[in-house]
Amino acid sequence: MTSSSTDWIQSLGMLLDKSQIATGNEDLVHYGKDWTKVFPPRASAVVFPKTIDEVQSIVKFARKNAVAIVPSGGRTGLSGGAVACKGEMVVSMEKMNQVLAFDSVERTVRCQAGVITQTIQELAKEKGLFYPVDFASCGSSQIGGNISTNAGGIKVIRYGMTRDWVLGLKVVTGSGEVLDLNKGLIKNATGYDFRHLFIGAEGTLGLVVEATLGLTRPPENPLVLVLGVSEFESLMNVLSAFQSKFDLEAFEFFSDKALAKVLAKGTLQAPFESASKYFALLEVAAIRPDTPDELMSTFEYCVEQGWVEDGVMSQSIQQAAQLWRLREEISETIAPFTPYKNDISVSVSKVPAFLDEVERLVNESYPGFEIIWFGHIGDGNLHLNILKPERLDKADFFKKCHGVTEMVSDLVRRYDGSISAEHGVGLLKKNFLQYTRSETEIELMRQIKKSFDPDNIMNPGKVFDV
Amino acid sequence: MTSSSTDWIQSLGMLLDKSQIATGNEDLVHYGKDWTKVFPPRASAVVFPKTIDEVQSIVKFARKNAVAIVPSGGRTGLSGGAVACKGEMVVSMEKMNQVLAFDSVERTVRCQAGVITQTIQELAKEKGLFYPVDFASCGSSQIGGNISTNAGGIKVIRYGMTRDWVLGLKVVTGSGEVLDLNKGLIKNATGYDFRHLFIGAEGTLGLVVEATLGLTRPPENPLVLVLGVSEFESLMNVLSAFQSKFDLEAFEFFSDKALAKVLAKGTLQAPFESASKYFALLEVAAIRPDTPDELMSTFEYCVEQGWVEDGVMSQSIQQAAQLWRLREEISETIAPFTPYKNDISVSVSKVPAFLDEVERLVNESYPGFEIIWFGHIGDGNLHLNILKPERLDKADFFKKCHGVTEMVSDLVRRYDGSISAEHGVGLLKKNFLQYTRSETEIELMRQIKKSFDPDNIMNPGKVFDV
Repeated sequence: MTSSSTDWIQSLGMLLDKSQIATGNEDLVHYGKDWTKVFPPRASAVVFPKTIDEVQSIVKFARKNAVAIVPSGGRTGLSGGAVACKGEMVVSMEKMNQVLAFDSVERTVRCQAGVITQTIQELAKEKGLFYPVDFASCGSSQIGGNISTNAGGIKVIRYGMTRDWVLGLKVVTGSGEVLDLNKGLIKNATGYDFRHLFIGAEGTLGLVVEATLGLTRPPENPLVLVLGVSEFESLMNVLSAFQSKFDLEAFEFFSDKALAKVLAKGTLQAPFESASKYFALLEVAAIRPDTPDELMSTFEYCVEQGWVEDGVMSQSIQQAAQLWRLREEISETIAPFTPYKNDISVSVSKVPAFLDEVERLVNESYPGFEIIWFGHIGDGNLHLNILKPERLDKADFFKKCHGVTEMVSDLVRRYDGSISAEHGVGLLKKNFLQYTRSETEIELMRQIKKSFDPDNIMNPGKVFDV
Repeated sequence: MTSSSTDWIQSLGMLLDKSQIATGNEDLVHYGKDWTKVFPPRASAVVFPKTIDEVQSIVKFARKNAVAIVPSGGRTGLSGGAVACKGEMVVSMEKMNQVLAFDSVERTVRCQAGVITQTIQELAKEKGLFYPVDFASCGSSQIGGNISTNAGGIKVIRYGMTRDWVLGLKVVTGSGEVLDLNKGLIKNATGYDFRHLFIGAEGTLGLVVEATLGLTRPPENPLVLVLGVSEFESLMNVLSAFQSKFDLEAFEFFSDKALAKVLAKGTLQAPFESASKYFALLEVAAIRPDTPDELMSTFEYCVEQGWVEDGVMSQSIQQAAQLWRLREEISETIAPFTPYKNDISVSVSKVPAFLDEVERLVNESYPGFEIIWFGHIGDGNLHLNILKPERLDKADFFKKCHGVTEMVSDLVRRYDGSISAEHGVGLLKKNFLQYTRSETEIELMRQIKKSFDPDNIMNPGKVFDV
């Protein structure tokens, strides 16, 4: 239960310096939304704490005054998890942007929650190391947001999700307590691991204020292959063939339509001349002198089996980067077409049958709509993008998409999949949560939220309703 | 609150076949304890469910009759987590020992909780794959027990803990609900990840009944080095030197006294003639033709720096296995000396200073006691073993050790470490939990237990008191 009065705004000055409070309309709009753009922002105030103590004061103040808090990072989320559309107080982590410590023996970095993902990637590189969580928005997204949504990206098949790189986590719970979770330890078997409860909780239990992240050795000599494939099932055979011989750094896919959109911009060349319905992009670290030859012979084997139609292998770091752009620029390229995004996953071996059914369903439901497929096939994650026809009104388009999403979600449930593989639930997918999580689980989530956030001030209404 | 009457035993026949119930004294003793041997077993009955339905019936029966349940796997635990010493009903997973599915594309295996760890390791090998969680008791320990204690072992530096290999988990909660957690998905961002709450919960929230485990490609051509080191700090330099050049499969250490005990059995040879105070054992996969040469030059560099006194590198798979035995046989070798075990961890870079302080403390507290150090130095995990002097009574010995453990735990707290790195808390370390977890965290654990196990029937009194 949160207050509808906004008298509390006057009292913020008791907690923070003037420069740490924003109530102007431009700021309220800017900090009140993320990349979803579906929910009109309506924040009451934005605060910018600089220390854990200040975060703690803010939470205690919010409890006392029954004010709802929306934790806010780089606001690059795609499910409305960081949208303030009900008069909430936005707590931006922007000023908690310090790297606190680097340890070369442990290969860890400790930082405040507001540090940009790319800063960590660059710091790692400077130290001869590698932070492997990587995705399109890493130039704006913040570590705290990555943790709260358990961000994935393009290297998950090899390096896992954000979850796998968090060795320690400091949080301020909804009851205003500071918890120092796991303390950067690799091994710690002392009861329930709350660190993992906060990872992916989308700010509904408390605010992530500090993290200790693991780093690793950088991959050597990346070789990139793009392969043309006519059948989706063949793609899975190709995955198996390469996976049994190499530690794949990535195994991505995109459809001919996705490629066509990227090529239409005129800045990139087609990977090869012949046409294919699907494309696989895979990366391998060429650690041995004979790795390129081994890759070629695996490629030839896949051609002999009739799985692969054509292909190309990078001959330089520059060419590897060019090939990656074919995949990485899809999202940005289709953005002007107001895509309706589904971010779904199933077990890897179920992908072909699932994709077949989804494709049929979507084609029947959206005759004439353009459908763009891409995704991280090596980990079962498919991004289904439906492009808005120019003539159609945006509201009508979203309404129609919403209806089809129910059918897609039903299919996801039948395949024991996830309605949100890596984008989180937020506001956008809240009504679909029960397609992946049982009623019992959702009820348990409510109870657990209550333990950490007794007054329901932490991002209320996100993920589930209490 | 659990019943003190044992009338309920008569009613078990309504739930299960006679062959699935044991009440004879020998069984009660056998199934009522783990490897700790500190707490006298006093179970009331042992039941052996074969299906999830049966587990569910047992839990509902236990709730109705206020009977406490002790989940029981391979009973190889070292903290008394699976001990029934208060008249509990032991639920043994022994008959839920079926491998249910193997998927070569996903590289996963789905199995019941009672499957032996080694069975999974062997199945993986048969399929050309690798299950990397490995430790001394893998011939008896069960997957469900591994999960409930988040078992670690000797390959954690490279492959992580059991937690990192659990893609899906079926559990029966203390309220008798079946939860199908994460369903084997790699990516799934749909609210709180309860899978990670059950991993390491030591059966206090419910029973693990089924798991989907990830497998990976086996390491190639393992090369093992044993190095003699005079200073503990040098050991950390050696770790850094090798870690910056190779993906280490393992980095273990043991003291000269540990080695002496193993050599005294007369079955193994010293790694080299010269004496050193500490020994590092490291394993690297020789993926490149020049890996042995690179290892040699890194070794020589360490000698030049004065960090390493002497060393040996395996010339064959057989010799690699022999060298591993020097480390692996320590635990078994010292078992007859009734060792008092401390399984502690700190952040890797704090290890030398911490070890120095612990060693001083322990030597002062136990003048004349023999102290055996070994552990997984690459992940900050130290096993401190105090051997019972022959003349000293067992009870007196444990009492004295307990007192020193309080001092060691206090040191662990000052170093932000863990009082149980991989052995869990159970009964043995319950009174030391607050040295690693705050009072707020422990109170939150109580509340969360209540959500999953409202009547406190699941392994009550383990990890913490409600």
